[in-house]
Amino acid sequence: MRLSHKPEPIPPAPFPQGKEGGARGGGRPSLTLPALREGAEERGGWVRGGWVRASGGFVIWLTGLSGAGKTTVAHGLAEALRERGVAKLEVLDGDAVRENLSKGLGFSKEDRDTNVARIAFVAQLLARNEVNVIVAAISPYAEARAAARERIGEGFIEVHVDCALPELIRRDVKGLYARALAGELAHFTGVSDPYEAPESPDIRVSSEAQTVEESVAAIVAFLEATGRL
Amino acid sequence: MRLSHKPEPIPPAPFPQGKEGGARGGGRPSLTLPALREGAEERGGWVRGGWVRASGGFVIWLTGLSGAGKTTVAHGLAEALRERGVAKLEVLDGDAVRENLSKGLGFSKEDRDTNVARIAFVAQLLARNEVNVIVAAISPYAEARAAARERIGEGFIEVHVDCALPELIRRDVKGLYARALAGELAHFTGVSDPYEAPESPDIRVSSEAQTVEESVAAIVAFLEATGRL
Repeated sequence: MRLSHKPEPIPPAPFPQGKEGGARGGGRPSLTLPALREGAEERGGWVRGGWVRASGGFVIWLTGLSGAGKTTVAHGLAEALRERGVAKLEVLDGDAVRENLSKGLGFSKEDRDTNVARIAFVAQLLARNEVNVIVAAISPYAEARAAARERIGEGFIEVHVDCALPELIRRDVKGLYARALAGELAHFTGVSDPYEAPESPDIRVSSEAQTVEESVAAIVAFLEATGRL
Repeated sequence: MRLSHKPEPIPPAPFPQGKEGGARGGGRPSLTLPALREGAEERGGWVRGGWVRASGGFVIWLTGLSGAGKTTVAHGLAEALRERGVAKLEVLDGDAVRENLSKGLGFSKEDRDTNVARIAFVAQLLARNEVNVIVAAISPYAEARAAARERIGEGFIEVHVDCALPELIRRDVKGLYARALAGELAHFTGVSDPYEAPESPDIRVSSEAQTVEESVAAIVAFLEATGRL
């Protein structure tokens, strides 16, 4: 056994982003180029027209406005996946994560980005150990989501949980939109703070146009189609 | 193999801490009562005189003063475990964790406790998915370590990486002790900030009395003796 007094670097994520990955700057990674990379079979990727299962877990990243249904979809999806025998699964829900990882952070762009980066760090640790993750977090800034994708690699699946603002204001389950519209809540996403909707998410579901079951089914279908289930 | 303090490893906390566990405040849990609890076989524990492997991963929690050798032991242990075929293993090293989870936190008791709680949160997520974890963090407060043990449960293994202060001051690889002794560093553990050494760690190793190899071997022996390897 060789022991070194100098610490080794922590092994990298299994899907480090190469120059050809195309994930920098917020775009989606190419679905064709990775197949050309050496070792694609081992790491998973599109090879000869078919998706090869990656060795890491997937990270379903649900982004959307407050009240759009991220948490509901997250838990519905978790239940559907468990029923299909997906044993290793963690839900990182925005509020719980704030409590455990980001207490003290506020809602400035910097603090939101830090919060998203922490979730991505934890999701990466889990995914590279073959634990699947469902993240439900507003994550309003495209650049922070792109950084999460870059960090996590091919396992990252961006899901936009869509709902138009007028409908959210109509529902206003927690009464927060009314307060935000009255100017009582600074940094309320969609009203007094920006939300940069994903331009090309891997999946877009809608709590207006779909039932929860339909949204969950759409995500499950994507996981099946890409060989993750 | 020479051990400086405790020749015999102490069995780990076999179960999540209940009222009878007695682990609050830093004590060790009872080794007898848990075996009587329902479901002991599934969860792992001392049953009919023998340790039953727990289903989760273990969390080796290395605590000790700055420069005592936590990071060196962590990486030596990681290498030894990988050589033994332990595939799922993450090292959560103090500095890397501060960068990724706790940027902005300082070194007040509150901030240190928050940092330790975040590490415990992440270690728990990993361990309950059968990923083994090595934490290297000063974690100077006994209460915060006890809370980590309570959170993580039976997988938690506290290892005190010991080294006497005069020796650390003599080594002073980073020059920090000199600065702290000169009054230039507030909140420097062991000099201008407290370190509550574990009274009854599961394992105690020493970078004064042992080589790195011996420290690693002591931890590996403990893992073997408790059925985790």
